[in-house]
Amino acid sequence: MKCLAPQQASSFYSCSSNAINMTTKEDLEAIENQISTIEVSSHGETASPVLAHGKFKTVEKGRNWGWLLSGFISLNILLLGIAIVSGSVFNKVQISSSHLLIFLILLVILTTVWMVYYKVHTSRVDRAVLYKDSHAGPVWLRSGLVLFGICSVIMDIFKIVYYAGRMDCESPVKIAFPAVQALFVIVQTYILWVHAKDCVQIQQIITRCGLMLTLSTNLMVWMTAVTEELLHQTVAPMEISSNSSSDNDHRSNVNEMQGRAEDSECKCSHNMCDVFENAYYYLYPFNIEYSLFASAMAYVMWKNVDRRMDEHHSHNLSFSPWDVLVGPVAGLIILVAGLATFVVYEVDVTKGNPKHTEEALIMHYVMNIVAILLMSITTLVGCIIFRMDKREQVSGKNPTRSLDVGLLVGASLGQFLICYFTIVAVLASGVKGNINGLNLACAILTVIQLCLQNAFLIKGLHREPYKVTETTTVFANNMAVRERDPERRSSSIVPAHTLPIPLTLFQGRLSWKRRILKEICAFLLLCNVILWIMPAFGARPQFDNTVGSDIYEFQTWAAVVNIGMPFGIFYRLHSVASLFEVCLTS
Amino acid sequence: MKCLAPQQASSFYSCSSNAINMTTKEDLEAIENQISTIEVSSHGETASPVLAHGKFKTVEKGRNWGWLLSGFISLNILLLGIAIVSGSVFNKVQISSSHLLIFLILLVILTTVWMVYYKVHTSRVDRAVLYKDSHAGPVWLRSGLVLFGICSVIMDIFKIVYYAGRMDCESPVKIAFPAVQALFVIVQTYILWVHAKDCVQIQQIITRCGLMLTLSTNLMVWMTAVTEELLHQTVAPMEISSNSSSDNDHRSNVNEMQGRAEDSECKCSHNMCDVFENAYYYLYPFNIEYSLFASAMAYVMWKNVDRRMDEHHSHNLSFSPWDVLVGPVAGLIILVAGLATFVVYEVDVTKGNPKHTEEALIMHYVMNIVAILLMSITTLVGCIIFRMDKREQVSGKNPTRSLDVGLLVGASLGQFLICYFTIVAVLASGVKGNINGLNLACAILTVIQLCLQNAFLIKGLHREPYKVTETTTVFANNMAVRERDPERRSSSIVPAHTLPIPLTLFQGRLSWKRRILKEICAFLLLCNVILWIMPAFGARPQFDNTVGSDIYEFQTWAAVVNIGMPFGIFYRLHSVASLFEVCLTS
Repeated sequence: MKCLAPQQASSFYSCSSNAINMTTKEDLEAIENQISTIEVSSHGETASPVLAHGKFKTVEKGRNWGWLLSGFISLNILLLGIAIVSGSVFNKVQISSSHLLIFLILLVILTTVWMVYYKVHTSRVDRAVLYKDSHAGPVWLRSGLVLFGICSVIMDIFKIVYYAGRMDCESPVKIAFPAVQALFVIVQTYILWVHAKDCVQIQQIITRCGLMLTLSTNLMVWMTAVTEELLHQTVAPMEISSNSSSDNDHRSNVNEMQGRAEDSECKCSHNMCDVFENAYYYLYPFNIEYSLFASAMAYVMWKNVDRRMDEHHSHNLSFSPWDVLVGPVAGLIILVAGLATFVVYEVDVTKGNPKHTEEALIMHYVMNIVAILLMSITTLVGCIIFRMDKREQVSGKNPTRSLDVGLLVGASLGQFLICYFTIVAVLASGVKGNINGLNLACAILTVIQLCLQNAFLIKGLHREPYKVTETTTVFANNMAVRERDPERRSSSIVPAHTLPIPLTLFQGRLSWKRRILKEICAFLLLCNVILWIMPAFGARPQFDNTVGSDIYEFQTWAAVVNIGMPFGIFYRLHSVASLFEVCLTS
Repeated sequence: MKCLAPQQASSFYSCSSNAINMTTKEDLEAIENQISTIEVSSHGETASPVLAHGKFKTVEKGRNWGWLLSGFISLNILLLGIAIVSGSVFNKVQISSSHLLIFLILLVILTTVWMVYYKVHTSRVDRAVLYKDSHAGPVWLRSGLVLFGICSVIMDIFKIVYYAGRMDCESPVKIAFPAVQALFVIVQTYILWVHAKDCVQIQQIITRCGLMLTLSTNLMVWMTAVTEELLHQTVAPMEISSNSSSDNDHRSNVNEMQGRAEDSECKCSHNMCDVFENAYYYLYPFNIEYSLFASAMAYVMWKNVDRRMDEHHSHNLSFSPWDVLVGPVAGLIILVAGLATFVVYEVDVTKGNPKHTEEALIMHYVMNIVAILLMSITTLVGCIIFRMDKREQVSGKNPTRSLDVGLLVGASLGQFLICYFTIVAVLASGVKGNINGLNLACAILTVIQLCLQNAFLIKGLHREPYKVTETTTVFANNMAVRERDPERRSSSIVPAHTLPIPLTLFQGRLSWKRRILKEICAFLLLCNVILWIMPAFGARPQFDNTVGSDIYEFQTWAAVVNIGMPFGIFYRLHSVASLFEVCLTS
């Protein structure tokens, strides 16, 4: 145990020369607990002469009041929000969407005010942020945030223009909300870009509550966007289906319906309303992703409040693109093929001709099956190599890594859900025809691939990064010496983090295991990129193939797809980032 | 650090006489990591003379393969189950309830087989269970399990008799499932009663997978029961509402409808069908609770696989009922008043007369408001005393405690959800009349009470139990000595668990803070009992008051209440147990 001498405790604890050199955060906490006990003692009824002097700062750990308060704030906002959203969906008279928007405007303004306050306060106080979490807010997350933030702002502008044209018949709240939201997105993107790594040390209760408010606001915005998207896709086809017999071709129906509904009730004062409405509905998915990204970052900041970093891991991980060749090339082939089929698919499907749609679907499924099969095989190989090439697991707690893994598994649930609903639907429909068979195969393979990829990434993220080991011979000598010198054994256990990882001694070239792992990561990375592009840019085979909406009611099916899909998109993007990390550390 | 000498490592590590006496699980893990690193080394390319002898057992920690595999099994079963349940609800033709039952029968049989295998295997192998988690499977949980298990078996018997009378027109699966389920409940209750505290050390991968299978099976049974209960309550009133204008009095409608539906399709071969059907629907809530209890216990066992206990906390906590007086008496008054109003309420409501129902509701709400207001005030006082009377937080990880807190907060979500839906509904309806005003007040107070009680319990469960301190003077002397003797400071840090908690020196009588805390716990405990009794034995003011089903669609409202209520019942029961623990330790 490396001896810690916090300033406050230096009179009691000093460093012992032969102490075991193995500091963990838990040791620090244990010592702090002792300090806080002594502090408590000084307030207690017993007043021993020594304890009465207690000047130690109380360090309250774990589930403290700020933690509880912020948790309850978030819980209450979210549950109240769920109730209002449900009300506005099922009862359009007493609880209108305006009520929901007023609730959101309040939340968004409160959050924006808090963020401005946070910025001002932390920049004025000296020791506000003592530590930075180097794992928090990685560059892919922050870049994604900015990208989706820009799209969200554009969406808000389109919305404002659209509702400005319909001022006479729509509530002014409908213009106010996108305006306030645009401001919120700009402020929040700036704050999260600059402060995502902060481990705040001052005003912890207020900061915790503010961060939970931010998290809840983003989740509420997300929930509202998902619901609106859902209603937009389902209510129109539902209403029209009572007139027309088939609602197979939902795209043309929706457009038709929109035109009619608007004509009947409300005239737009400029003639660009339809364009803007269509445009902002296309930008909804980006807003949904933005909210998920911001929620994840706010949560990490909340976890990092009052956190003290044990050490700054700054692995100088170098990435040399020439180490790997087969993986990237194979990945690029899949990527290009995927892009080509995606373009053809979109062109074919928008024609609205059933025969073309069928061909497009077959092509899409075949493409996906090939890609996912290859990915599954390579991931399996990767897992086997992990088992063979055992390496130390990273120790120590790290909220960012835990969240990473949690988000990865959580986000994959969306795609899992869609796959299982597809499998059950296709099996229930009797697996008639090529399309259903391919759909079934694709869904089953995706489930397998998701399991394997999750296992691969969880294992990969928990391995100690590869380090070039010059200490190996020293270690061996050290051990030999200790064998001969039994008296010294007890006092000098070798610190865990300097134990060498005996992988390869010939530097410059990679061992075959490391090389294969890097090839696999590069291949999977590019495959995940194409699996991200397809749904992110509008491919919805789940709706173009009618088996889902035939077996379940259309509303249920649309709910499953529309809730699952944003998570699926987030999952692929997150996988790309995680695979890049595993590629670097392996 | 207390020195650990695992058998395998005894040649390398022995006990140092002046090591700091503070063993945590993390230390153990760190040492095991070192051991496993050395093991890895012996397989690596470097073969130092010492390392080549490595005979140490690899201890893979954290997210190992068994952990991943069992997680994926559970995930896949649950998602497939959700898809099948959704299919059987929304599509009664291609995915019938028989398909769902076949899936459940398979799961239940598999789980039963695994449990029998587990029993046989662990009793035959010598060192299968090295440690027992004294916190796992507390007596209230196991007693609840047995009680609800008995009710579940009775329910199954009723179901078998009911479906046996309708053999000609119903699928044989409908008889097979309750028969298999009854067997499953008996085996599972026995296994969980006997083995709930096990920390299994052998066949970890199989055991983890088996436990996750058990968890998934119980959750699937729970999900099916909730869905069936939901359909039973909603489908009938929905169908009849097209004929009759009002569906206010859902109880009589349901009965009426049931009679009609059965008459039209299928005749019962004995004349007790109606009785048995009504009886088994009354037992559904117990089956739902049983599944939740069993899931919680299976999860704790899963967390405890491969766990090594640091020490056996066996606090000899004595409970003397004469320490407290005001709290229990006040609690008993509330309990008796609650029971009286509950009986009157049930009698009034079943009459079906709207005027009586209104009076019953007013009485119910007034009773609840008084109880919850008193509870909120006392809980607030308790929280203030916790802040004043600072005590060491329990350190060290404990899956059971974490789960306790998680389940407490998670289960309270059910009641939170119902409250917020009520608040929004009443506000949207314009708060007309006494009943709505009382309903609103009751819902708001319940939210406040839940927040306060959760905070109180979380804080209370995380405090070190009170210990009578004879060591206080020794400690003071010890500290004084150390002040004079700076050389010895470093080598003898006082172990954390023997640090005295300086509360009171006059034994025999309690300090006023401890006394008030005990009074508060006793009062809250009895209040939670009555708040448990009312919904558990059938009070459903949420349906008797029509505001919820008026504002939301009836189906949505029924879903919210039927999903939220079992969690609410579980929450109250769990609170009673937690309050008892806090009462003992404070």
